[in-house]
Amino acid sequence: MLGRIWRFLVGPVLSTRRVRHERLPVWLALPVFASDALSSSAYATEEMMLVLWSAGEEALRLAFPISLAVVTLLFIVVFSYRQTVYAYPQGGGAFIVSRENLGEFWGILAASALLVGYVLTVAVSIAAGVNAIISAFPALLPYRVELCLLFIAFMTIVNLRGARESGLVFAPPTYGFVLTFAILILVGLARGFAGDIQPAPYPPYGEGTQALTWLVILTAFARGCSALTGVEAISDGVAAFRAPESRNAALTLLLMAIILAGLVLGITYTASYFHVLPLKNEHGEIVETLTSRLARTVLEGTPFEWFYYVVQAATMLILILAANTAYVDFPRLSSVLANAQYAPRQLANLGDRLVFNNGIILLGILSALLIIYFRGDTHSLIPLYAVGVFIGFTLSQAGMARRFARLKPPGWRIGMTISGFGAFTTGLVFMTQLIANFRYGAWITLLAIGVLMFLLFKVHEHYMEMKVQLQPRYTPPRPLRHKVLVLVPSVHQGVLQALDYARTLVPPERIEALHINVDPRPPAVYRRVLKRTKGEEPELHLVTPAVERLQHEWQTFVPDIPLKVIDSEHRSLVKPIEDYIDELLEREQLDQLTVIIPEFYPRKWWHHLLHNQSAWILRLALMKKRKVVVSTVRYFLER
Amino acid sequence: MLGRIWRFLVGPVLSTRRVRHERLPVWLALPVFASDALSSSAYATEEMMLVLWSAGEEALRLAFPISLAVVTLLFIVVFSYRQTVYAYPQGGGAFIVSRENLGEFWGILAASALLVGYVLTVAVSIAAGVNAIISAFPALLPYRVELCLLFIAFMTIVNLRGARESGLVFAPPTYGFVLTFAILILVGLARGFAGDIQPAPYPPYGEGTQALTWLVILTAFARGCSALTGVEAISDGVAAFRAPESRNAALTLLLMAIILAGLVLGITYTASYFHVLPLKNEHGEIVETLTSRLARTVLEGTPFEWFYYVVQAATMLILILAANTAYVDFPRLSSVLANAQYAPRQLANLGDRLVFNNGIILLGILSALLIIYFRGDTHSLIPLYAVGVFIGFTLSQAGMARRFARLKPPGWRIGMTISGFGAFTTGLVFMTQLIANFRYGAWITLLAIGVLMFLLFKVHEHYMEMKVQLQPRYTPPRPLRHKVLVLVPSVHQGVLQALDYARTLVPPERIEALHINVDPRPPAVYRRVLKRTKGEEPELHLVTPAVERLQHEWQTFVPDIPLKVIDSEHRSLVKPIEDYIDELLEREQLDQLTVIIPEFYPRKWWHHLLHNQSAWILRLALMKKRKVVVSTVRYFLER
Repeated sequence: MLGRIWRFLVGPVLSTRRVRHERLPVWLALPVFASDALSSSAYATEEMMLVLWSAGEEALRLAFPISLAVVTLLFIVVFSYRQTVYAYPQGGGAFIVSRENLGEFWGILAASALLVGYVLTVAVSIAAGVNAIISAFPALLPYRVELCLLFIAFMTIVNLRGARESGLVFAPPTYGFVLTFAILILVGLARGFAGDIQPAPYPPYGEGTQALTWLVILTAFARGCSALTGVEAISDGVAAFRAPESRNAALTLLLMAIILAGLVLGITYTASYFHVLPLKNEHGEIVETLTSRLARTVLEGTPFEWFYYVVQAATMLILILAANTAYVDFPRLSSVLANAQYAPRQLANLGDRLVFNNGIILLGILSALLIIYFRGDTHSLIPLYAVGVFIGFTLSQAGMARRFARLKPPGWRIGMTISGFGAFTTGLVFMTQLIANFRYGAWITLLAIGVLMFLLFKVHEHYMEMKVQLQPRYTPPRPLRHKVLVLVPSVHQGVLQALDYARTLVPPERIEALHINVDPRPPAVYRRVLKRTKGEEPELHLVTPAVERLQHEWQTFVPDIPLKVIDSEHRSLVKPIEDYIDELLEREQLDQLTVIIPEFYPRKWWHHLLHNQSAWILRLALMKKRKVVVSTVRYFLER
Repeated sequence: MLGRIWRFLVGPVLSTRRVRHERLPVWLALPVFASDALSSSAYATEEMMLVLWSAGEEALRLAFPISLAVVTLLFIVVFSYRQTVYAYPQGGGAFIVSRENLGEFWGILAASALLVGYVLTVAVSIAAGVNAIISAFPALLPYRVELCLLFIAFMTIVNLRGARESGLVFAPPTYGFVLTFAILILVGLARGFAGDIQPAPYPPYGEGTQALTWLVILTAFARGCSALTGVEAISDGVAAFRAPESRNAALTLLLMAIILAGLVLGITYTASYFHVLPLKNEHGEIVETLTSRLARTVLEGTPFEWFYYVVQAATMLILILAANTAYVDFPRLSSVLANAQYAPRQLANLGDRLVFNNGIILLGILSALLIIYFRGDTHSLIPLYAVGVFIGFTLSQAGMARRFARLKPPGWRIGMTISGFGAFTTGLVFMTQLIANFRYGAWITLLAIGVLMFLLFKVHEHYMEMKVQLQPRYTPPRPLRHKVLVLVPSVHQGVLQALDYARTLVPPERIEALHINVDPRPPAVYRRVLKRTKGEEPELHLVTPAVERLQHEWQTFVPDIPLKVIDSEHRSLVKPIEDYIDELLEREQLDQLTVIIPEFYPRKWWHHLLHNQSAWILRLALMKKRKVVVSTVRYFLER
């Protein structure tokens, strides 16, 4: 039943032969790999300006300069990553680059930061996407968390079905988003310079609650840096590009940086120009996003007010795509870690639909928990987000610098300078993130990364120890001292069959039979009725104890094997059997004991309920015993 | 962990040797067996008078005459049961008497009626006990259901611990209850006749909502008959009396009837005299019981107003004892039915504490569900209650009449007349119950009894069919065609050990080894990193496919047994193994195939999470295959 629901949701099983890799031209690779990075422009400016606004109207003038700093950082990172895509034409994510060049520890740190980052990508992108919907339809505000969870469930199912990273699926929403915002910014600038729109009044909340200190500026910058999240995606996916892979990937990186820079600068400039800030309700909850306010302001009074809904739809769609990127990358990295024996190996299992089911489900659960805990509030999630991403940036670029220093390819000095400078800058920004956002939640990310690293190393240790222990060793074959113990609940056809089976394994003198009498003194009062046979007169006669009857039947049907009967004082079945086995192993110095549990297998499922589950319980208990092999011989009931 | 909580709640395991039977003198047997019957006087009058009150003040005059009719019925039933205790000195409950004298079908009908009755006894008694508390402390009214559930949980645990039916435990509350109410009635009558108390004003609800028809009178009578519930207990427990058992039991029956008659008549007379009716709140919910009102009325203005709390405490205690009777009888009857192969045999297991755990837990759950469904309201539960009890009365006495007619002991004509009259009368009352209470819930009881009968017969049918199939038959021993199939996930020490084990069972030519390749084409991109060995320069080399490596290792360590490798197209492990087994059984015409699953057993519990649970899944799947014996050979990890 559960199997059928699963099959309906995820679709029919796919053959392994259908694993294939699409090779993307630049114009299709851009939407696939850049959607995550570009989508962050939907919330980066908002977060930055909210911080500045808390320091007063004057502070908002710093918005554009700070966004220039963010864009500068973007280009530093991108130029550094261009070197990575040339060095790693097979794909060089932060995990691979750090592990190869900095060593095991840094690789696992990068992997942990990436995994935590993917969970946050899903949570932040889905929350921001839902914000876009709520801005357009404020009536949905009370259902924010429910909407987020609905989207997560939807994305989990879609990915379990095996959504391929098809360029043709990604192209329309990504290009649509870029085009929509380009139009919005240009129209806004044109109307603004023409004096067609008056700057909006400032919103009525939180102005000047703090002084404009350096910490505020750093915090604003740190929040603005959330625009850089997702930039690393291309370096990881070079193998998916059409040849020449590295050149095309480098070109795509540059294109992406230019577009993203345009979006961030454009949105920040127009928003500052028109005094646009997000709208909060009386509970301090953001009910309309900055980009939504911007779109309304720019389009107000024109015949194109309907275009507002296009803007919101485009925003929502690209954010969903960004979450999808994490849905592809998280399970893939988990499976790499599992194959490298750092993560539980279940994460490396390719599922029915050629995707890593367990990783997808894990990501869905973790991001849903984040959404629930933070009530789907992007503003609370952003401080957690960027800090992990910058760990990845720093390690990846430090790794590249180290690589240049070691391998010394032609032009290595310039390469090392670029990567080293990138590592230094992103390292600084990481420190900034940490200082500015620590009390707003960055500590949670650090803690999560630390715990994850610990777990990964623990798991690795176990797998390595196991590998050593399981190393095949040649041992000369020797005859094992082996006996078979048949458990006898009563004398019935199933037990006789189990005995026949035992006889095929060993000669009769090496078979033992054991009966546990769990009811040595049955309550006598009611036995009388049971003995009454139909039609006969009921009479008070003494009941032969069940054990005597059993022994009599045993002698009739199994004369050659003695039956050992043990009374169980506490009516437990398991304990006396365990004790007897221990004694037997000890007494006869056995190397191996096969315990045969006869069991009947009913024809209908509900019949299972009518039988004591002793076989199950025994199997579970005997599983823990060394030298014991448990064999279940089933007798199939025909009716 | 769960085991420890269980042990703490129910206490240490008891040895079977501690099963013993107390033999009770009359003065201790009376409280043990009569508490259930006597306790019903706490609600019978109330239910009867509520029905009459709905037909107006005048109708209330019929209360005493109707209670006289109830008492007459009581004596008819009791005289009939006196014959039962002589005929069945080992105990003759309705099930045993009907089954022996009327046949299988009627016996099961009686058993079903009894089982349903026990569940209702718990629900009604607990609800009425909680009513007694609420009457004294009205602030507890909103927690009625919670209090009921608390009591049920408490009684379930106490009975799981194995509360013995100790006469010394039952005597004080039972005699206390009788004495308390005797004082109350006598003081009431004295003060009433002395003109010391004025009759209370009638309560402000529901007077004269219907005309006084015969149906109303019959309904009042039917409700009043709830006083008879529990009368049958003595007939079932004759064996617990001190010798001469039957005579003592008959004497106890008579004493009980006299006391119960006194209570019912006394309460009804004084309540009618003082116009006492239960108190309802604005929602029509009873907030104070009739006996509580009666006690307040009688004691008002005297220096003994504190005695009111004694009355309430005594009422509550005897009702709890009544529920306890059902907690003893339900599991016992279930176990009798299980031993007679009508109920699932789990109900016959004596638990740690020498009680039938499963029956106790089942009773707790069912009565809790009833309490929740009826919101702990006695008034809704009573109409369900008596109808089942009268099925038992009728069958039991019809059985006795039949017995006299068949066995013809001395004086059988008189005996048959008494029992026959009893059966006829109780049969008529059963019809009355059915007609009067059908729409108030009696149909639920009938339905429950019908469904239960159906289930019992179905279960019996299955057990009987199974018995025939499992009948041991002598078949001449013949050599079975037998092979061993070892499943090989990879070549490790555990697999080698499993092969050694296989060799002790059969010669090598009868061993097959099977490997399922679930990942025929692993994703190539990440394989490179995995191959990197510490310190070495990473290089892009082709990875030898895992299967080739496996085959190479196999030839090194197991040269004498060929390894069969099957590619799994859909990455499933189970399906190809099942297919191969089917093919093997067919091809070699095997009688038996032992499938050996090598498994390693980790040292720490959390390590289990790090391994694919393939062994479990395989075992579950192969369980369903005929001719296949599944053996698990475990390799114990040391670290």
